[in-house]
Amino acid sequence: MGRDQGDGLVAIAGRIGVVTSVALNLAVFAFYLRGAGDKEAGKKVKKAAAVAPSSGKPPVCADSIINLDHGDPTMFEAFWRGPMGERATVVIPGWQTMSYFSDVGNLCWFLEPGLEREVRRLHRLVGNAAAEGYHVLVGTGSMQLFQAALYALAPPGGAAAPISIVSPAPFYSSYPAVTDFLKSGLYRWAGDANAFEGDEYIELVCSPSNPDGGIREAVLKSKSGKAIHDLAYYWPQYTPITHMLAHDIMLFTVSKCTGHAGTRIGWALVKDREVAQKMNKYLELNTIGVSKDSQLRAAKILETVADGYERQPAGATGDASLLFHYAQRQMMQRWRALRAAVTASGIFSLPDEVAGFCTFAKDTVTANPENTI
Amino acid sequence: MGRDQGDGLVAIAGRIGVVTSVALNLAVFAFYLRGAGDKEAGKKVKKAAAVAPSSGKPPVCADSIINLDHGDPTMFEAFWRGPMGERATVVIPGWQTMSYFSDVGNLCWFLEPGLEREVRRLHRLVGNAAAEGYHVLVGTGSMQLFQAALYALAPPGGAAAPISIVSPAPFYSSYPAVTDFLKSGLYRWAGDANAFEGDEYIELVCSPSNPDGGIREAVLKSKSGKAIHDLAYYWPQYTPITHMLAHDIMLFTVSKCTGHAGTRIGWALVKDREVAQKMNKYLELNTIGVSKDSQLRAAKILETVADGYERQPAGATGDASLLFHYAQRQMMQRWRALRAAVTASGIFSLPDEVAGFCTFAKDTVTANPENTI
Repeated sequence: MGRDQGDGLVAIAGRIGVVTSVALNLAVFAFYLRGAGDKEAGKKVKKAAAVAPSSGKPPVCADSIINLDHGDPTMFEAFWRGPMGERATVVIPGWQTMSYFSDVGNLCWFLEPGLEREVRRLHRLVGNAAAEGYHVLVGTGSMQLFQAALYALAPPGGAAAPISIVSPAPFYSSYPAVTDFLKSGLYRWAGDANAFEGDEYIELVCSPSNPDGGIREAVLKSKSGKAIHDLAYYWPQYTPITHMLAHDIMLFTVSKCTGHAGTRIGWALVKDREVAQKMNKYLELNTIGVSKDSQLRAAKILETVADGYERQPAGATGDASLLFHYAQRQMMQRWRALRAAVTASGIFSLPDEVAGFCTFAKDTVTANPENTI
Repeated sequence: MGRDQGDGLVAIAGRIGVVTSVALNLAVFAFYLRGAGDKEAGKKVKKAAAVAPSSGKPPVCADSIINLDHGDPTMFEAFWRGPMGERATVVIPGWQTMSYFSDVGNLCWFLEPGLEREVRRLHRLVGNAAAEGYHVLVGTGSMQLFQAALYALAPPGGAAAPISIVSPAPFYSSYPAVTDFLKSGLYRWAGDANAFEGDEYIELVCSPSNPDGGIREAVLKSKSGKAIHDLAYYWPQYTPITHMLAHDIMLFTVSKCTGHAGTRIGWALVKDREVAQKMNKYLELNTIGVSKDSQLRAAKILETVADGYERQPAGATGDASLLFHYAQRQMMQRWRALRAAVTASGIFSLPDEVAGFCTFAKDTVTANPENTI
């Protein structure tokens, strides 16, 4: 369920380890482990010709091989096929949103007002990040916003050397590749933040961390250093919400929040107006804004999630209307099954469970990291 | 109606002139010219508070000022509000296309199969470009594919100097800014192709040309040089279709083809498999693929356009089912009105009309360039 499926198809230099996509691949993993000692294992199973319409991939079967390289957040699909799913349906007529513009009065002129409204509402509901007083920017996934932030925070260039981009190891395997693939004169990957010496840098803080799920803070403390907080996993299904974070640049994505990776919608909360303007300029030059269709859909999805908590829809029982509760239960069950399978195998080890009081759930809950090494 | 509305909001160095968005702004332009000698001109018109839902902008009124900097392709909106519009409606339920993947077996694994099918079908119908034997890639607009092509064609870098990117002047004003904004070590803007000396380069061939609508061929002929053909305007409403083009890399976008700029969907036809793979890698690293919602919508829109010609839908009379005919008539009427207004003003001049035999319309038709200096 990592965001690095790109790496999965075309190898990228600088990978730091195998990212196990626990959530997605667990069923296959269990098959695989069982299959090793199974008399049936040698039998050839007829190859499935069909491709699942929701994922473009062959369906899981008994001789599927676990994919340790990348994942895919389709595990929440069952929720969206339930009673709340219909509420999240969007209908887009042929004449709608033909323009480049969404709101010419907004700093981010291609941001659909409905998406901004629902992003702010969701953060108020969950309490994971301060949105009031922040500029909201929309991106084609949060990785585009990460690159926009590098562009905005790097000195304008010229004679100066590229600024160093660092992150405490183990870091998300795509950071080095995405930073360096265009050999920009503005910024350059410089590796582990813990080993970095100097005052001029941009530190990437991914919390909860991809790959290990750990709660992180910036390790470098220079006054002239800058930080980008990648909070893709700071949602109640992955970790207890303990603080309303208020960092300078905070990145989120619907891929991890609701499971809709295919929409490619991420957003940034940015404190400083000039930084937000420069990030926006990156988005203009790179893709002249962001798909309005996916923005409309993401707005509807986030609205549905918040409505599930705030308007108690009729007909939904248990956690069928509560995405974060449903997803938290899914993650917990999968971790439990994974721990059992790993214990049985004796080949792998897993990190210990961590629990904490979640201000959203108003209860002590276990962290269920989405990825693990 | 240029693609440089980004420039309109944040000034970009390197602009080569004022791009007049003829198609969009003509009504306002006529008002403006008339208003200069009008007794009513001094009267304050009550400011319109509303923002049009399709464009996020205030509606046009008598004291609107013509925007010579950028345009917006909402001129085809009336077609899509007509009988064909309903056929182009998409309905996307909450559970659909949650995955990163569209078709794992395809080189471009995030390309929706339906979009690829309709892209190939439309090129067969219009006869403007050879799609058979080409790889189809999807991008977040064609400008992302332009950057993907630079990445794919540039030598891998290292000690070598960045390759020169050139285009015959006058060129699209965004090319220099988009090429140079990240100060890539792989490529660097080198200006007018006619003034370039050397064998190592990538030439951008924009035909019909933005800004002047001229039909262009590569001006540089070195065997080691490479070319990217930006064919955003090579559709029957803008110019007679005279050849089925078959260049190495050809870029298109729905923004100009059907007027749906807000979907941010472009596509590339790429002859060489290795180049297509490297372009795809850029798209993976930059945005981990492209919005599936907009791909589904673009597929539906292109399908509707082709159906309008091939299946003669009931209830549509005149050119109400024929997008290219409708759009050609719109463009012609606007050019006629612009010529009249410009003649009356005595301030500006316009290029002469050019006509040619269009293999699609099977008639001699006038070129109606979308932009003009």
